[in-house]
Amino acid sequence: MAEEYDLVILGGGTGGYVAAIRASQLGLKTALVEKGKLGGTCLHKGCIPSKALLRSAEVYAQTKNSEEFGVLSSDVSVNFGKVQERKTKIVDQLHKGVQHLMKQGKIDIYEGLGRILGPSIFSPMPGTISVEMNNGEDNAMLVPKNVIVATGSRPRTLPGLEIGGNVMTSDEALAMEEIPKSIIIVGGGVIGIEWASMLSDFGSDVTVIEYADRIIPTEDKEISKEMQRLMKKKGVKIVTSAKVLPETLKQGDVVSISAEVKGEQKEFTAAKVLVSVGRQANVEGIGLENTDIQVEKGYIATNEFFQTKESHIYAIGDVIGGLQLAHVASHEGIVAVEHIAGENPHPIDYDLVSKCIYSAPEAASVGITEDQAKEKGFKVKTGKFSFKAIGKALVFGESDGFVKIVADEETNDILGVHMIGPHVTDMISEAGLAKVLDATPWEVAHTIHPHPSLSEAMGEAALAVDGKAIHG
Amino acid sequence: MAEEYDLVILGGGTGGYVAAIRASQLGLKTALVEKGKLGGTCLHKGCIPSKALLRSAEVYAQTKNSEEFGVLSSDVSVNFGKVQERKTKIVDQLHKGVQHLMKQGKIDIYEGLGRILGPSIFSPMPGTISVEMNNGEDNAMLVPKNVIVATGSRPRTLPGLEIGGNVMTSDEALAMEEIPKSIIIVGGGVIGIEWASMLSDFGSDVTVIEYADRIIPTEDKEISKEMQRLMKKKGVKIVTSAKVLPETLKQGDVVSISAEVKGEQKEFTAAKVLVSVGRQANVEGIGLENTDIQVEKGYIATNEFFQTKESHIYAIGDVIGGLQLAHVASHEGIVAVEHIAGENPHPIDYDLVSKCIYSAPEAASVGITEDQAKEKGFKVKTGKFSFKAIGKALVFGESDGFVKIVADEETNDILGVHMIGPHVTDMISEAGLAKVLDATPWEVAHTIHPHPSLSEAMGEAALAVDGKAIHG
Repeated sequence: MAEEYDLVILGGGTGGYVAAIRASQLGLKTALVEKGKLGGTCLHKGCIPSKALLRSAEVYAQTKNSEEFGVLSSDVSVNFGKVQERKTKIVDQLHKGVQHLMKQGKIDIYEGLGRILGPSIFSPMPGTISVEMNNGEDNAMLVPKNVIVATGSRPRTLPGLEIGGNVMTSDEALAMEEIPKSIIIVGGGVIGIEWASMLSDFGSDVTVIEYADRIIPTEDKEISKEMQRLMKKKGVKIVTSAKVLPETLKQGDVVSISAEVKGEQKEFTAAKVLVSVGRQANVEGIGLENTDIQVEKGYIATNEFFQTKESHIYAIGDVIGGLQLAHVASHEGIVAVEHIAGENPHPIDYDLVSKCIYSAPEAASVGITEDQAKEKGFKVKTGKFSFKAIGKALVFGESDGFVKIVADEETNDILGVHMIGPHVTDMISEAGLAKVLDATPWEVAHTIHPHPSLSEAMGEAALAVDGKAIHG
Repeated sequence: MAEEYDLVILGGGTGGYVAAIRASQLGLKTALVEKGKLGGTCLHKGCIPSKALLRSAEVYAQTKNSEEFGVLSSDVSVNFGKVQERKTKIVDQLHKGVQHLMKQGKIDIYEGLGRILGPSIFSPMPGTISVEMNNGEDNAMLVPKNVIVATGSRPRTLPGLEIGGNVMTSDEALAMEEIPKSIIIVGGGVIGIEWASMLSDFGSDVTVIEYADRIIPTEDKEISKEMQRLMKKKGVKIVTSAKVLPETLKQGDVVSISAEVKGEQKEFTAAKVLVSVGRQANVEGIGLENTDIQVEKGYIATNEFFQTKESHIYAIGDVIGGLQLAHVASHEGIVAVEHIAGENPHPIDYDLVSKCIYSAPEAASVGITEDQAKEKGFKVKTGKFSFKAIGKALVFGESDGFVKIVADEETNDILGVHMIGPHVTDMISEAGLAKVLDATPWEVAHTIHPHPSLSEAMGEAALAVDGKAIHG
């Protein structure tokens, strides 16, 4: 028994379910195939649960520190079981929300593992989807005009560094039942630093081992430096230019692992090891071999409208690589669907995508770094403004960090905006809009930022680009 | 002994001292006359100290509620003395910052009361400034080419409602040594609601008496309604359409006052009364009578470059009325100085000014309300998105409130953006920039807002304007 659809989406993560909603808005008869839970990695194993834990860590740090604000309390402690319960409750609530949206959009959900078939009795073209149903019923056969592959990714590990026992990826770490006394975090990228910040705030003894010469190496160098300073300030040990030697892993009551640090081999020991060295695409077992779809360096290759070599089969989100962010996946999904529906969408300019780190302090950026701008041959001017001179930051009780704007001296274009400090993940969208609308620093500076607000740092940094900061 | 200046500024509040810095940047020889403290109302009696108290109230509320986040604590209480100490420390630190900026800009500070003289031996034109020095020295005589009057404002009261004893304005309230058991707040505007929120969070029994039919009546009606709902939720009693009868005031151990509420006279009793019915301009005693400067309805009249009838004498900030916000005063100061320096500044478009309310929840807006848009004859379309469907709001633990965008159906222009909820005073600047750059809802929606972030509510509200919200 085969069901016909305008669109079948493989994978119900942020990319897939948002694509399904947009498809429904555009009147496409849509099915979504998901073998796990609607919401995918972001909702169940990524953004949302990790941010829930980070928020509890923040509340713990602040409660311990409440006397600074004139608020007395005693016996401050963490009930990690309750922290996890709260996380689960939030995830469940949002999960129900996604289910409701699917129902509202009249999107058919197939709970099972979808595979793309080659040319078959259902269609002369590859793209029929066979769903191995979770409930054990006969495979469902879906015959779509178009397919979107949105199967996402899973944590990567290092060759020889086996996950299990006290060695975890973020997947296992999210389910921890207690806060480890100590932890080695292999990889000081975004995920590694978020975990380092959170576990340190919860009282863990944290060591970060990073291969590059600085943590969060994709961010502007000054942001890395300030983040490193502030992580160290809260007690996180950071080892950079360090190559973990997986074959040195010893598991027992504690775990030990060695790394080559600037030519020397050093051993690190802790209760747990968290491996956060990136994510790899889920390209296996979904029938790509039955199609002409190309997989390059582990990711599905697409054009700017997310069409694979099979032009009626699209791929979006982590499975195509790139920035591997939830909001990128969802916008890719929207563009793919609008392209399918003949709506002439604009391709995504990845230079305009904001990136956030939800550690304490937060960091956020959009556009290119100062170094990247110089490498690209721009004549660069920068404006930087510290939260130390922002009244609202003092009031808030967090005045570390700054806003930095990188601009083109010749055209006055804003090339990149880099922030570290309080609430910057809420504030980066002003910079994102500035990039989208190609605003100059002058225009940002002449947007009257309310006083007192943290966003004054953005206005002042924009003035500073031309040496006109008022409070600098 | 007379000193010549390019510019003398009367009043060292946010308007005056920012004008002085800009003047210094432009090479003007500048003096600033201030009889009180540099930083003025905003720093010493307004924005900053009130936000410091609000922040402590927020920390108190959150500490009491920390168990929701899995953080245990006991004996949570407020040490209001420490709250006040922290406030004073922040104010002192920023005060030192302003003093440093004045020194850095080589701006001469005269501590005393400045008065504008008429034509004299120093100048055939009015504008010489005589400063009655705080230190008792002989009056300083300053002979400037230009003058900026930035003397600010002070709290207004109702005729017959005398300040003293248990009846205060915000000036006295900021110096309170303990949290009053109960308080009646006369006036449910921005300042009244900030105090209501703060004192209620600190444990006071708060009653707000508002003359209009809703609190914060200058905001969009839906914002007023949501704010009223959330204030009531935290226990604030709100009485609208109520005319306070000042002659009914009875002071003793407690204060009582009556109001006419929908035709009926009702008596209210509390430990304190806070009168927050607006501010009046400081136009007295500064020698305006020696000039042709016009005072209209209590405010100095100026043109769009802030020139008074004496074209070399400018006036900015609260003393000219209008929005009476610190960030407006400072931008007016910058425009006035640039005009003096022949820099051809743009006049300020007050429609582009963001307004913030720092209560819990926060509110913020830019542009016009839905009702104002309809009154102006626009064919209005709106998009509204609730924080309930924003993952980061659930994570943060505050999902009340929404973002509302008012747009012109014909031109697609954004006419106003109205926010109530978590961190909206940090987020309003994106809307401010959108207004400055005349962005359409489409452009805002196509700015990829990071996930999970509170600013997603802005992106979704922009999509909702055209019925395309993803999570709605």
